[in-house]
Amino acid sequence: MTEPRIVATYHIASDAERIEQRALALAIEQSVECPLEAIGDPAIVANIVGRVEDVAELQPGRYAVRIGLAAATAPAEPGQLLNMLFGNSSIQPDIALADVELPAHYLTAFGGPRVGLAGIRTLTGAQSRALTASALKPQGLSPAALASIAHQLALGGVDLIKDDHGLADQAFSPFAERAAAVGKAVREANAARGGRTLYAPNISGTLDDMRRQLGVIRDEGIGAVLVAPMIVGVSNFHAIVKEAAGLVVVAHPAMAGAAKIAAPLLLGRLFRLFGADATVFPNYGGRFAYSTASCLALAQAARDPFGKLNACIPTPAGGIMLQRVNELLRFYGQDVMLLIGGSLLASRERLTEQASRFVNKVADYGQR
Amino acid sequence: MTEPRIVATYHIASDAERIEQRALALAIEQSVECPLEAIGDPAIVANIVGRVEDVAELQPGRYAVRIGLAAATAPAEPGQLLNMLFGNSSIQPDIALADVELPAHYLTAFGGPRVGLAGIRTLTGAQSRALTASALKPQGLSPAALASIAHQLALGGVDLIKDDHGLADQAFSPFAERAAAVGKAVREANAARGGRTLYAPNISGTLDDMRRQLGVIRDEGIGAVLVAPMIVGVSNFHAIVKEAAGLVVVAHPAMAGAAKIAAPLLLGRLFRLFGADATVFPNYGGRFAYSTASCLALAQAARDPFGKLNACIPTPAGGIMLQRVNELLRFYGQDVMLLIGGSLLASRERLTEQASRFVNKVADYGQR
Repeated sequence: MTEPRIVATYHIASDAERIEQRALALAIEQSVECPLEAIGDPAIVANIVGRVEDVAELQPGRYAVRIGLAAATAPAEPGQLLNMLFGNSSIQPDIALADVELPAHYLTAFGGPRVGLAGIRTLTGAQSRALTASALKPQGLSPAALASIAHQLALGGVDLIKDDHGLADQAFSPFAERAAAVGKAVREANAARGGRTLYAPNISGTLDDMRRQLGVIRDEGIGAVLVAPMIVGVSNFHAIVKEAAGLVVVAHPAMAGAAKIAAPLLLGRLFRLFGADATVFPNYGGRFAYSTASCLALAQAARDPFGKLNACIPTPAGGIMLQRVNELLRFYGQDVMLLIGGSLLASRERLTEQASRFVNKVADYGQR
Repeated sequence: MTEPRIVATYHIASDAERIEQRALALAIEQSVECPLEAIGDPAIVANIVGRVEDVAELQPGRYAVRIGLAAATAPAEPGQLLNMLFGNSSIQPDIALADVELPAHYLTAFGGPRVGLAGIRTLTGAQSRALTASALKPQGLSPAALASIAHQLALGGVDLIKDDHGLADQAFSPFAERAAAVGKAVREANAARGGRTLYAPNISGTLDDMRRQLGVIRDEGIGAVLVAPMIVGVSNFHAIVKEAAGLVVVAHPAMAGAAKIAAPLLLGRLFRLFGADATVFPNYGGRFAYSTASCLALAQAARDPFGKLNACIPTPAGGIMLQRVNELLRFYGQDVMLLIGGSLLASRERLTEQASRFVNKVADYGQR
């Protein structure tokens, strides 16, 4: 049979003598997960058992192993795809999932970003420049206090304001009350300055919880939503994408781990495949130690051609200061959304002014 | 205010000069996630900002840092608890979540295992010995072929038969058809030998998907269910626990990662807290390189006193051979369920006989 296979690339720490055997063991681990002698049916050996396609030395003691996995084992269901790509081997300390090539039918089935980079440009009116974003913090503030911050950021012209990913449904800031208050504050600021700032409340909990929260978002006429796929589960994330038609879906990297699934693959390619319109990730030079190479690869995975999927807007975040705007736009280009949270908020009573400086700095760069 | 805090212990790689600063940065990262100067309200600094409780050197260049996190930021909702414990810091490569102490109200709110170790003993009739489990493999087999394997394992007297965690809802083995066929085979084998073998089908996908699958399990009179909390999302896992009253809930470690959240904490304590009756984990000496110390700590976290929560039965798995049964029972004691999959299945036509040898070996150990 010549059914196309999923080709997953793993990086394995191993000595040269054992790498062929490690590769074969991995191919079995991520497919049938049992000794080959336990398999009676030759069709399973031919069509279901993972196949070592290639082993290449990256550097002494470190190898890239490409494994062909049968698409039949992973229907187009996000959780099962992740399970077959890395379920068990995620527990092996010296194996990382580096990359994956998917047969075309996965792209059709998942559909990727619904609004996408181009749609976000249309919604915000930011056609020819990079986009700007900020975050509502700190936790512990009341909905009214968060709404006041959002109002100032929106008056400053920031394109997208997201909840801090730590804001859930806490007593000090219940989801429904917060979404309503912040949504109203952003609408009023938009009306005051003729702006189109989007607000993305953070939804969380079970799929039921998220649906209730999505209902609030609809009722309040809010235009975006923030979700952490690795906490809510990628299957539920994708279910939300399908139910959030018309809303900008922003993916947050919480619980994405660092070393085990390559960031460009997980936060760039896979979150996009499952439908993120924007993907937030830790910027290089910040407190998360992603390399410049990793950030660039992530941005490319989010926005470079990927079948017919819409582009997802890469959204670097984490310790970004105003002074770095030009450097970051040189690095990422214009198809990016810069997210500045804490360093804007530290300006306190001058928040609108600082937000406006941020927005202008990004816009000016586009005009040069 | 003296509200009890969650106390999370992190292990951080750092030089001595920077560890105090790293600890403070981590306390901020996992709470307000913004510069302290961005916080206007002194009550937030006092009550919400994470607090460094203790810094201790584990070995040169490696520290244990205890951080007090405000319970108000993490309502008793599994995803949000995980988010506040490790959401962002999971992305920092040199930080691992090692342990957590929770205020008592979390135990009451989550409730832990519903059936628990004692309940599993009652259901299976295995009162005074260790328990036995096996797995249905390989992927690619039809429901009828898997049912035939299950029939033989149940005739051999294995206490619990679980789906391979790779079995989802594939064309070669649709969930409803498989659960019905295997459920029937196990019932018939139980009737034939007067046994009480449990079957745990693997449920996956969105919460909606899992509910549909749970409906099949109910309809077929099946007594257990297998779930991978880190793939379906811990919130949805806990929702299933609440809806699966009377069923034995078995947690699978897929996507649990290796180095970032300590296995005893995640697979032992937290999965138990959220309601796993049995927790499957990679046994030492197998292909996942968990240490003996880690496996023992995990088993203890699953079954040692933890508030008033039921005990969860530790279920070591992965490359276990019959010859290791005595060694493992000496190591884990009787409050354990040994899971042997592949090496039993490799016996092919002698499967019932080998399963029976496994069961007898475990039972004999208890009689000595």
